[in-house]
Amino acid sequence: MTSFSWPIRVYYEDTDCGGVVYHANYLKFMERARTEWLRRLGCEQDRLREQTGLLFAVRAIVIDYHRPARFNDHLRVTVDIAAIRPASLLFEQRIFSVDEPSDTPLCAAQVRVACIDGHTLRPRALPRTLLTEIERGH
Amino acid sequence: MTSFSWPIRVYYEDTDCGGVVYHANYLKFMERARTEWLRRLGCEQDRLREQTGLLFAVRAIVIDYHRPARFNDHLRVTVDIAAIRPASLLFEQRIFSVDEPSDTPLCAAQVRVACIDGHTLRPRALPRTLLTEIERGH
Amino acid sequence: MTSFSWPIRVYYEDTDCGGVVYHANYLKFMERARTEWLRRLGCEQDRLREQTGLLFAVRAIVIDYHRPARFNDHLRVTVDIAAIRPASLLFEQRIFSVDEPSDTPLCAAQVRVACIDGHTLRPRALPRTLLTEIERGH
Amino acid sequence: MTSFSWPIRVYYEDTDCGGVVYHANYLKFMERARTEWLRRLGCEQDRLREQTGLLFAVRAIVIDYHRPARFNDHLRVTVDIAAIRPASLLFEQRIFSVDEPSDTPLCAAQVRVACIDGHTLRPRALPRTLLTEIERGH
Repeated sequence: MTSFSWPIRVYYEDTDCGGVVYHANYLKFMERARTEWLRRLGCEQDRLREQTGLLFAVRAIVIDYHRPARFNDHLRVTVDIAAIRPASLLFEQRIFSVDEPSDTPLCAAQVRVACIDGHTLRPRALPRTLLTEIERGH
Repeated sequence: MTSFSWPIRVYYEDTDCGGVVYHANYLKFMERARTEWLRRLGCEQDRLREQTGLLFAVRAIVIDYHRPARFNDHLRVTVDIAAIRPASLLFEQRIFSVDEPSDTPLCAAQVRVACIDGHTLRPRALPRTLLTEIERGH
Repeated sequence: MTSFSWPIRVYYEDTDCGGVVYHANYLKFMERARTEWLRRLGCEQDRLREQTGLLFAVRAIVIDYHRPARFNDHLRVTVDIAAIRPASLLFEQRIFSVDEPSDTPLCAAQVRVACIDGHTLRPRALPRTLLTEIERGH
Repeated sequence: MTSFSWPIRVYYEDTDCGGVVYHANYLKFMERARTEWLRRLGCEQDRLREQTGLLFAVRAIVIDYHRPARFNDHLRVTVDIAAIRPASLLFEQRIFSVDEPSDTPLCAAQVRVACIDGHTLRPRALPRTLLTEIERGH
């Protein structure tokens, strides 16, 4: 299986005075990739929320930082599904350098994302059509 | 008249790989100070929105950057009212270094903030009680 | 003359609880577009800094916010040069919605960017080769 | 033992269009608290870097999000040391609501922070004086 993969360019805004990408910003890169993975499956989150009241919320993250990314680096963020539950998804995500390819990612995370009601913030079942699309690609 | 003034500490998250505070982040510092100025006047923005549907939106900014702030700097952000209109306020804001006091701010801005309806995003008159408080302190 | 133009997708990270893009984040979008405009002219800022010690610093911004962008919007950020000085550039930048095309931008800014020495933070002349590239495209 | 505890106010910049604090921003709150904990122990990170070339880098995070924080919330971020190694510290951190006190935190994390050389980015032993201060408070 080939992972879904999304390119990211590192801008000034992403870095800190240590000269590298600020640690919390890798989580933004990972969410951008999940958003694009959902879009690829036909799920536009703004429309999903308008039509069903559902949105996605991050419930847990385990992240390991191996090597830092720097200003102007060209990165590749991967998205894989590790587990599918009725109301949540477990993602495996990795960030690689495009310019210095390596099997070791710069950082790697497991991200658990719940499907919730936008008003009550309570868990809700993932949309059937989305599950079908995920299982098809899985 | 003494300006309202709010302390800010510069953390890693605020800096960039140029070794200084990222230029867009001074706008965050200024908004924190406006929020605390409003709180001082008795206006809690979450309650305002719940009770009246009103919120504040930035309409225009003119900002000059004179000297950079750095990681761990202790800053002081001032808030002054330059003009009061029925549905907007014009703020004069400056950011000073606390550790190296000077009459020249690190940066200075004029920020125009409109009062709007949270649903329609259309301009709405500033709450009467807030205007009274502003004029009292002005 | 056609403006240089760079696409931006609005992600969760860019928005605030007003339901729209947080006002300071439009400045990030504009810097991403200036970075890509420089790259198009052959200027990679990490290499520039390594080879010459030069970097770019924002000195002044005038920005007007007309209409808000929202989560998942597809935007187009333009870059035009309004003035070229020995040690600084004045940019005209606008952000448009791609999905709801209009001649009126969502926001428009003038951004003055100085070329500085990365150590002393003092102004330095723009690299000759960059000036030539800018004038060619101007 | 009482945990070290640092107050945080939630501003617009911290929230997203889901109406709550953006998930990556809790990591910023936690780093602010660690910075203030270090300051309390007499360690100013800018001086540490100037004098020894050392800085701290986040190596791993495990974070669970239980309940969301919202705009204008008043939070309390705790810092506890779970393990001390020669070149790294393991922190236990929790974020609580001040306005709605509860034993259950809004979110809880384990954060492993390495002491590294700012140039080589290689691990280096924690400063002796800092270790002494930590052990004294531990």
